[in-house]
Amino acid sequence: KVEKKELLYEGKAKRVYRTNDENIVWIEYKDSATAFNGEKKAEIAGKGRLNNEITSLLFSKLKENDIESHFLKKVSETEQLVKRVNIIPLEVIVRNFAAGSFSKRLGVEEGKKLNYPLVEFCLKNDDLGDPLVTDDQIDVLEIATKDDVSSLKDRAKEVNQVLTGFFQEIGVRLIDFKLEFGKDLEGNILLADEVSPDTCRLWDIETNEKLDKDVFRRDLGDLNNAYETILGRLGGPTHV
Amino acid sequence: KVEKKELLYEGKAKRVYRTNDENIVWIEYKDSATAFNGEKKAEIAGKGRLNNEITSLLFSKLKENDIESHFLKKVSETEQLVKRVNIIPLEVIVRNFAAGSFSKRLGVEEGKKLNYPLVEFCLKNDDLGDPLVTDDQIDVLEIATKDDVSSLKDRAKEVNQVLTGFFQEIGVRLIDFKLEFGKDLEGNILLADEVSPDTCRLWDIETNEKLDKDVFRRDLGDLNNAYETILGRLGGPTHV
Ligand SMILES: Nc1ncnc2c1ncn2[C@@H]1O[C@H](COP(=O)(O)OP(=O)(O)O)[C@@H](O)[C@H]1O
Ligand SMILES: Nc1ncnc2c1ncn2[C@@H]1O[C@H](COP(=O)(O)OP(=O)(O)O)[C@@H](O)[C@H]1O
Ligand SMILES: [Mg+2]
Ligand SMILES: [Mg+2]
Repeated sequence: KVEKKELLYEGKAKRVYRTNDENIVWIEYKDSATAFNGEKKAEIAGKGRLNNEITSLLFSKLKENDIESHFLKKVSETEQLVKRVNIIPLEVIVRNFAAGSFSKRLGVEEGKKLNYPLVEFCLKNDDLGDPLVTDDQIDVLEIATKDDVSSLKDRAKEVNQVLTGFFQEIGVRLIDFKLEFGKDLEGNILLADEVSPDTCRLWDIETNEKLDKDVFRRDLGDLNNAYETILGRLGGPTHV
Repeated sequence: KVEKKELLYEGKAKRVYRTNDENIVWIEYKDSATAFNGEKKAEIAGKGRLNNEITSLLFSKLKENDIESHFLKKVSETEQLVKRVNIIPLEVIVRNFAAGSFSKRLGVEEGKKLNYPLVEFCLKNDDLGDPLVTDDQIDVLEIATKDDVSSLKDRAKEVNQVLTGFFQEIGVRLIDFKLEFGKDLEGNILLADEVSPDTCRLWDIETNEKLDKDVFRRDLGDLNNAYETILGRLGGPTHV
């Protein structure tokens, strides 16, 4: 039986604990909401549960579609067990429609459909504000090898194709999302971290209502309501 | 004989005039210094001459090394004739050593030698502050084709190799620089714009003294002195 041991590190949204198995970590989803690289912060009771439930559901559904991840099992409403990996310090962003920093930086209207799904990388470094990095910058700074960058792109596009389908079925448009990948002890690249409304932009297909962290970023209403909508439509255990 | 006609457009550093030949434009170098996307400004008498002389010299020397550019001939201390092109809206940046925005954004110490010359692209758009763009962003937004991006990289690296040699001979380290390319009427990609201490970072090899626009950006002393040093070492007509 896997036992929860001491805290390894605490991020903005999750706490990571060691377990009695060196290949497994225990993840606890927090009720914290943060945006703009930690500039905007709030505690939202219930958010941890929602993200843990949604992430667990999505990783399970991905697995049914032959997309492996670090996810092992949910152990409580706010906790899950995952395979321990060394996170590759890149945020892997997939965009189907223009939004957020992409729209702002490049002057492209929010909601414009891109010609094809775009993969971007940001250096995962809070002190630097997670700056966008080009493939050549990643290579020259030895952040990741060219081979790893190329597999990350392929993997991210596969995840996008499957996730886009899931969300389509529940009347939600997958605008963009952020993934993190890690390497397990044998050096295999594995999808890690979370897939939740904190890390995806999700718009209702009919109304364009935002059902993701932009509700918090832009003060558009009740975050828990939006996340409950996603969890409910995915068939998860809602509290309504 | 080529005659100067009406002003076509005025940029931050140069004025571009039509001529009686539709394939040729008349460029006048201004005495304006601007930095931080136009936030910092000054008029520096004599700067236009220095950049016109230095650019003319460097484009001539590049040509002797089989690197074609838009440059045709110097017509006065502050003016030159160039082939008219449609500028590709990308700033092509080559970096041999970390400096400037690269150092700041990615947390790399200024002056650190890169493993190999890095080419970056920024979208040439003052309103957006010339944002960095990845190859995939350039492609999905149809800013340039993949083939054009690939030739721009090759061309920029060739220019870098030759320029690095010129500057080495005069005791100057070429840290980084920005190029612009355009397409002529037949669609051929041609090196255009300018190559000057406004668009290059140039450090004295012995003392690391900055001999470029950082003197203005960072208030390090007299800009004309620095530019005269470069012009003088290149064998140009100095005013000292
Ligand atoms: N399978 C895993 N093994 C080890 N660390 C992980 C795993 N999955 C995610 N992490 C890391 O857990 C940390 C905590 O997550 P989070 O609170 O989202 O952090 P952040 O503040 O960086 O967004 C992050 O550094 C994340 O990369
Ligand atoms: N051969 C050329 N044909 C047409 N336009 C050119 C050519 N070379 C440079 N230009 C353009 O001339 C304009 C004026 O130059 P500059 O003052 O440096 O402008 P900026 O403010 O954009 O830096 C720029 O838009 C530049 O791209
Ligand atoms: Mg996170
Ligand atoms: Mg210019």
